[in-house]
Amino acid sequence: MRNNHQTKNLNKKKIQTLDKRNMASINWQFSGSEDAKDASAATLGSYTSRIMAKCNPTPEKPILPPLGEAPETSHTAEKAVVKAVLMGTGNAYAPSIGLPAAKSAVAEYLSRDLPTKLTADDVFMTVGCKQAIALSVFITATPNSNILLPKPGFPWDMVQAIYKNVEVRQYEFLRDNDYEIDFDSVRDLVDENTSAILIINPHNPNGNTYSEAHLMELAVLARELQIMVISDEVFRWTVFGDNPHVPMGKFSSIVPVISLGSLSKGWSVPGWRTGWIALHDLDGVLKSTKITTALKQFLAIDSKPPTVIQAAVPTILKDTPKEFFERRKTFLREKSDIAFNKLKRIPALTCYKKTEACTFLWTELNLSMFSDIDDDEEFCERLASEENLVLLPGIAFGLQNWARHSIDMETSELKDAFKRLKRFCHRNSKAPELEDPLESDDDVE
Amino acid sequence: MRNNHQTKNLNKKKIQTLDKRNMASINWQFSGSEDAKDASAATLGSYTSRIMAKCNPTPEKPILPPLGEAPETSHTAEKAVVKAVLMGTGNAYAPSIGLPAAKSAVAEYLSRDLPTKLTADDVFMTVGCKQAIALSVFITATPNSNILLPKPGFPWDMVQAIYKNVEVRQYEFLRDNDYEIDFDSVRDLVDENTSAILIINPHNPNGNTYSEAHLMELAVLARELQIMVISDEVFRWTVFGDNPHVPMGKFSSIVPVISLGSLSKGWSVPGWRTGWIALHDLDGVLKSTKITTALKQFLAIDSKPPTVIQAAVPTILKDTPKEFFERRKTFLREKSDIAFNKLKRIPALTCYKKTEACTFLWTELNLSMFSDIDDDEEFCERLASEENLVLLPGIAFGLQNWARHSIDMETSELKDAFKRLKRFCHRNSKAPELEDPLESDDDVE
Repeated sequence: MRNNHQTKNLNKKKIQTLDKRNMASINWQFSGSEDAKDASAATLGSYTSRIMAKCNPTPEKPILPPLGEAPETSHTAEKAVVKAVLMGTGNAYAPSIGLPAAKSAVAEYLSRDLPTKLTADDVFMTVGCKQAIALSVFITATPNSNILLPKPGFPWDMVQAIYKNVEVRQYEFLRDNDYEIDFDSVRDLVDENTSAILIINPHNPNGNTYSEAHLMELAVLARELQIMVISDEVFRWTVFGDNPHVPMGKFSSIVPVISLGSLSKGWSVPGWRTGWIALHDLDGVLKSTKITTALKQFLAIDSKPPTVIQAAVPTILKDTPKEFFERRKTFLREKSDIAFNKLKRIPALTCYKKTEACTFLWTELNLSMFSDIDDDEEFCERLASEENLVLLPGIAFGLQNWARHSIDMETSELKDAFKRLKRFCHRNSKAPELEDPLESDDDVE
Repeated sequence: MRNNHQTKNLNKKKIQTLDKRNMASINWQFSGSEDAKDASAATLGSYTSRIMAKCNPTPEKPILPPLGEAPETSHTAEKAVVKAVLMGTGNAYAPSIGLPAAKSAVAEYLSRDLPTKLTADDVFMTVGCKQAIALSVFITATPNSNILLPKPGFPWDMVQAIYKNVEVRQYEFLRDNDYEIDFDSVRDLVDENTSAILIINPHNPNGNTYSEAHLMELAVLARELQIMVISDEVFRWTVFGDNPHVPMGKFSSIVPVISLGSLSKGWSVPGWRTGWIALHDLDGVLKSTKITTALKQFLAIDSKPPTVIQAAVPTILKDTPKEFFERRKTFLREKSDIAFNKLKRIPALTCYKKTEACTFLWTELNLSMFSDIDDDEEFCERLASEENLVLLPGIAFGLQNWARHSIDMETSELKDAFKRLKRFCHRNSKAPELEDPLESDDDVE
């Protein structure tokens, strides 16, 4: 065994003989993994960064939607976290499946709308809805399995499927039928290796909520096809249209359902990273097929949501007044109306459905009307460059030559955004004489 | 295209023809992934649960270490988070690489002890130190690569390597030389596919901190072997022994270094899930070998730390008074002294090093002294069952027939813990008449 003295001598000798080369000239044995390369290219963030980089904001023409402006956070949520911090109730490592009090509160909350009640054991806390989506893809991924994802859809499910090397099959929607799921496309895609269909309800970016009848039909179809339904319901608190939100868990007597949610959208607390996965497993199928076991195993090795916010979840879910959600819905309903009407006056963009839930309008681009724009990415980059207006290209959601337009800003900003959009379309139109953007700018509500 | 009316009719028909079977009798196509099975079995949590399940606490004999008792949290940290919540500074999605203000604050903080200063660009925010460890394993994992991990070591690196199917090679320590790294074992293990050596400094569970000379020797050896050094420094704020903590980044002019840290241990905020990865990349090697790119790609697709706590990081790092850390060190130093002395009186357990940094003593079990205990797991299970005292078996840290004993409790509890340990050893000894636990219980300090 070497003693301290020997070590020191050896050390001294080593340093003396150390070559003086720059480290860059050494043939290092390591190199970066490429395992996340393809998946990371598909994130919304990578598209957003590219578009944002084209902006050149000025005081007269700041970037829209405005940066760093978030809707007002729920005061109940703020106070609950402050209390948890100051009382120290969240200063501990929580079990990897989540803090019991948070699990129990989510179960109780979700059960309000369910014929069969959930218990704390059915709920698992996650790092926002994003980890919930990731884990729901991971736990159903077995060798050669495939999963049905929406086209278009919020890209996080796609990102995780790419990372996990799961085969993705994309089902479509009936554009002229209120963006209902095209069940024929679902039926065509499923084979004996399909494990699940993932739905987003309310749907981002389509902007619709599914009716009870439609969801029941989905449940029946999934049962027939022997696949489970995973339902991302993160937008359920901002449903401001005529159709109420119906949770997929209502049909868990027909088919096993996994539902996903989080605090971020409903309570306007982006970045708080606290969500959940609920297993609606009436006949114990998710248990017997080891889906439950897989979920616990992944939660044991993956990142955990902050305990200090988990500790606040019971108060947040119980005590937030209805008025908080109503205020937000009224705000978005008004913006949705304004934006939808403004869009009607821009012939190159067609919105087939006034959003009734999300904070976006989903529009088809008629690129044949432009003189020199080849696709949706070029459209968005040019728009950012010329007008400091940021729309996201449809390709980010899996559908080329569409674009997603935010409506989540003050009315004056929203009107400014559409003025810029209209001018941009006019300026780049093949036949600019056909429309005069200045004439009609102020007369539309 | 199908209209609403047709859909409803179809739906009605479907429901009528729906079979009435229990869902468990259907041949579902999905089953749980086993990708996390082996990794999850290696977590500390899975060992802890098994041991805890053996306890039968009574009011007279509660579980030790006491459940739910955490050291006092830094008030500065609490106030900083409360402020961030109430001011709304953290209510936004942060960039996937971290909030700029947090990155900058960590860079400045770490630079205090470094000859070459870090900038915000060198720092990436993570979901606690655990995600930092996971990502440092993931980004260096290329086909056929292997990584050197400590034996014993905190198991999270092992868990992630198992999950990622990376070949692990375990280097050892010189027990009689203050648990220095056995460089001969390192040299023996490295081949042309070795990417990195991961060290834990201060080391958990060994309990030592490495001297400047030892770390320099490691840097020189790693350079010779053309591998990088990853240094988990999460325990650097509780160094209470005679040796100061020296950050590995100090030697980044010799070898590329990745250092890992978090708030949890230093500020006593377990569960806040906010840590970091710092790239000490003086000659741009981590960049040119695409380690930096890989890190950004993984961060883009993985979970993010809560923005609301990231926003508080600058205040936490700048304003926490020295006295807060000194109080904690004084507490632990005293407990370390008491526990080390108590252990000397228990012949079946040998502690070679009084911890100078961590909250644990690492002890070798002499199982030949027991009448009916075969290994460390059985020792810990029996101890939990008979005395409601929870030690973790060495196998959880990769070394059989050792055990890790917590010292992080009040003096009266610590003394009670050793009383129970001593009685247990006496009761299960092959030659119980050789020692009388009652006689010597109160005379040792």
